[in-house]
Amino acid sequence: MKKVDLLIIGGSAGGILSATTARKVYGDIDITVIRDKETVMVPCGIPYIYGTLKDTSKNIIPDKMLTSNNIDLLVDKVTKINKEEKYIVTEKNEDIYYDKLIIATGSLPIIPSFPGKELNNIFPVYKDEVYLKNLLEKMSDFQEVVVIGGGFIGVEFAEQMKKSGKNITLIQRGDKCLRRNFDAEFSDEAEKLLLENGINIKTNTQIEEFIGEECIKEIKLSNGETIKADAVLLGAGVKANSVLAQDAGIEVNDDEAIMVNEYMRTSDPDILAVGDCAQKTCFFTRNSVPILLASTAAVEAKIAGYNVFKNKLTRKNKGTINAFSTKIYGRAFGAVGLTEKQAKNENFDIVVGEFSTMDHHPGSLPNTQTIKMKLIFSKYSGVIMGGQISGGDSIGEMINILSLAIQQGMSAADLNTFQVATHPLLTASPIAYPINGAAMNAIEKM
Amino acid sequence: MKKVDLLIIGGSAGGILSATTARKVYGDIDITVIRDKETVMVPCGIPYIYGTLKDTSKNIIPDKMLTSNNIDLLVDKVTKINKEEKYIVTEKNEDIYYDKLIIATGSLPIIPSFPGKELNNIFPVYKDEVYLKNLLEKMSDFQEVVVIGGGFIGVEFAEQMKKSGKNITLIQRGDKCLRRNFDAEFSDEAEKLLLENGINIKTNTQIEEFIGEECIKEIKLSNGETIKADAVLLGAGVKANSVLAQDAGIEVNDDEAIMVNEYMRTSDPDILAVGDCAQKTCFFTRNSVPILLASTAAVEAKIAGYNVFKNKLTRKNKGTINAFSTKIYGRAFGAVGLTEKQAKNENFDIVVGEFSTMDHHPGSLPNTQTIKMKLIFSKYSGVIMGGQISGGDSIGEMINILSLAIQQGMSAADLNTFQVATHPLLTASPIAYPINGAAMNAIEKM
Repeated sequence: MKKVDLLIIGGSAGGILSATTARKVYGDIDITVIRDKETVMVPCGIPYIYGTLKDTSKNIIPDKMLTSNNIDLLVDKVTKINKEEKYIVTEKNEDIYYDKLIIATGSLPIIPSFPGKELNNIFPVYKDEVYLKNLLEKMSDFQEVVVIGGGFIGVEFAEQMKKSGKNITLIQRGDKCLRRNFDAEFSDEAEKLLLENGINIKTNTQIEEFIGEECIKEIKLSNGETIKADAVLLGAGVKANSVLAQDAGIEVNDDEAIMVNEYMRTSDPDILAVGDCAQKTCFFTRNSVPILLASTAAVEAKIAGYNVFKNKLTRKNKGTINAFSTKIYGRAFGAVGLTEKQAKNENFDIVVGEFSTMDHHPGSLPNTQTIKMKLIFSKYSGVIMGGQISGGDSIGEMINILSLAIQQGMSAADLNTFQVATHPLLTASPIAYPINGAAMNAIEKM
Repeated sequence: MKKVDLLIIGGSAGGILSATTARKVYGDIDITVIRDKETVMVPCGIPYIYGTLKDTSKNIIPDKMLTSNNIDLLVDKVTKINKEEKYIVTEKNEDIYYDKLIIATGSLPIIPSFPGKELNNIFPVYKDEVYLKNLLEKMSDFQEVVVIGGGFIGVEFAEQMKKSGKNITLIQRGDKCLRRNFDAEFSDEAEKLLLENGINIKTNTQIEEFIGEECIKEIKLSNGETIKADAVLLGAGVKANSVLAQDAGIEVNDDEAIMVNEYMRTSDPDILAVGDCAQKTCFFTRNSVPILLASTAAVEAKIAGYNVFKNKLTRKNKGTINAFSTKIYGRAFGAVGLTEKQAKNENFDIVVGEFSTMDHHPGSLPNTQTIKMKLIFSKYSGVIMGGQISGGDSIGEMINILSLAIQQGMSAADLNTFQVATHPLLTASPIAYPINGAAMNAIEKM
């Protein structure tokens, strides 16, 4: 009988960090990670396989993160969790008993049930190297590629696949691309870049039917148009992969995400869940929200790895702040917290602060880009509830200043006068530092 | 008799932001800024005039920051402050009476009193366009240029002036360049880059004598060497320019910096002081420290502009955290708070956390650089006291995440699990985000 102190199902961000954190916190215990694939793809790197990288092997998370921490790695498929007797059943190995179990089974792409969905050359995005490699090889056969979904996965795939000269059409059910993360003015900026670079965008429309024999040939849209398609990339979202947990009788919510408390513990006291398979609670509204990001999984894993054997008060999940960034045609976009639209829909009274500046100073320096920033504050408390930025690459970390500010419950007053480092080649001018400036703009309206 | 509600002496970062903040907070009052130069140089941009920009006119702070906010601008020299009767005397204009006065007279370069210092072609760095333009024109005559001082001004000037093929020698009194902001491992990395790019560095030595007739020809060093010098750039530090304040009987400290309270108010209740001319108090030690940065001036100015007519509790100066960044030969360096060396010298018990990662993920993406991070925490409270980073350009804003964390008194536990946005092209992997990782490394040692 095999028995381990800590068993983790899933080998991506959530599984790896649960394991390595527990190793650091609990020292010399037996830890096993079991996953059903030979290799693990960097999840956010997948779109870049189809443009910049051109090779799945360049997008692998190295196993040495586990093995160098003395964590056992099994490649096998778990078929059952028996929570009463605390063991799992796998396809190839003997049953494994656990003291504590962390479920990090991730998500699966949503496959919409349009007529014709069984045709060939319609591709969901599975995080599986063999599958993605096959897709990469096939791509050279396709000229007319239709991407379904204008969220960040769809937008990034469109931008990357355009590099090889294909004709790319992006289909977006709602009125704007990236509308879950950004207000209209930022979505418009992103769409403009996509259009200028030759990507076709069709908004406010959806698939009526996939048409073809054997292979997809055309797509009929709800707006009456019919468009050509040699291939379809489905970027229509993902959902929690919680089958194992559900079969074991662990509680899930209406979206089939595994329910967890602030320590990432499920309805079973010896089982925790992290990452895309676990329920996400919004930091602000306390509602359950479908925000599935590797960075969120990483934080949850660190909380779970820390608390797995003992609840320690210094690590709790305060809820997701939906921190997000992307880069399209040289322009970076970042967002965190609620958008203006979301905050209003959720019945918050808010004040918006806006500011534009340059990301070098003086602006005459080479490679200077404008920075556009929008901050959302609670009208009553002055506390920051969200931020959106577009600019150069520095946006990638600037958005995390706002992430920290949100998690600390900082006010516009705090953010107007917080001290920063500035440098001509690296940041905006200290006279026009955008977070300070946007906070002041909001204060003027309060 | 001319009378204004708010008079500000000095037109750089401190003066401008004092004026524009007061305009936003107090509405329709009379505000006048008086400065003694026709144009204002972007202070941190000055080294870049001598390499990348090659033109002083590209390094000017535009006056429209004042004029578009309906702030009167006078170019004139203030010769006296009469604080008892609340007016100033200028060279060209009539006396100006004020209700409130903000002094933002900045700093002046320290001119060491070495023998031979009166020789030609020895240049302090005055923030004066006419002077700097003259220096730029003369530079083409010089081949052997010696830079005195291995702080960031000296290092940036050396890197920039090397672009035109001169032979550059950097003289540093202490054992390492940038030693005020960084511990040895980061100073070593910076020095290696300078050496690899052909800059001569001489540490642990200082000037004994400047030798020459009329013009400088050679420099005798305390280590016995004599080196050639067609020109000398003095980057040996700056000191508060507080002559006007001292003559008026306003209290200054032992370094001649104007003493101020947390609202930036001087010993005179109607006079405030901000920026390089005002005393800096260390956030941690509460000692007076000679940290003169435009970004610090900017924050002080926003506090002064906000509090000038009324003390408002939401804006106080908690002390300088010495947030700083620079870029040398494509590598960015950032530092904030105390270094390990400083913390130990100041008798703090500390724990150090270290982490290395890559600034893109996967690391196979183009233009990926390593990030090296070191965090300093109080051993007793776990609260962050400092951070140092080297890496790509993203360091410019990443250091400001640490700036915010320090100002918020965050702990290693908080920083291990704070949520961030990550993106392949913009940040480290969520599995190996450096602030999270360095915090965990410190926790393991606590």
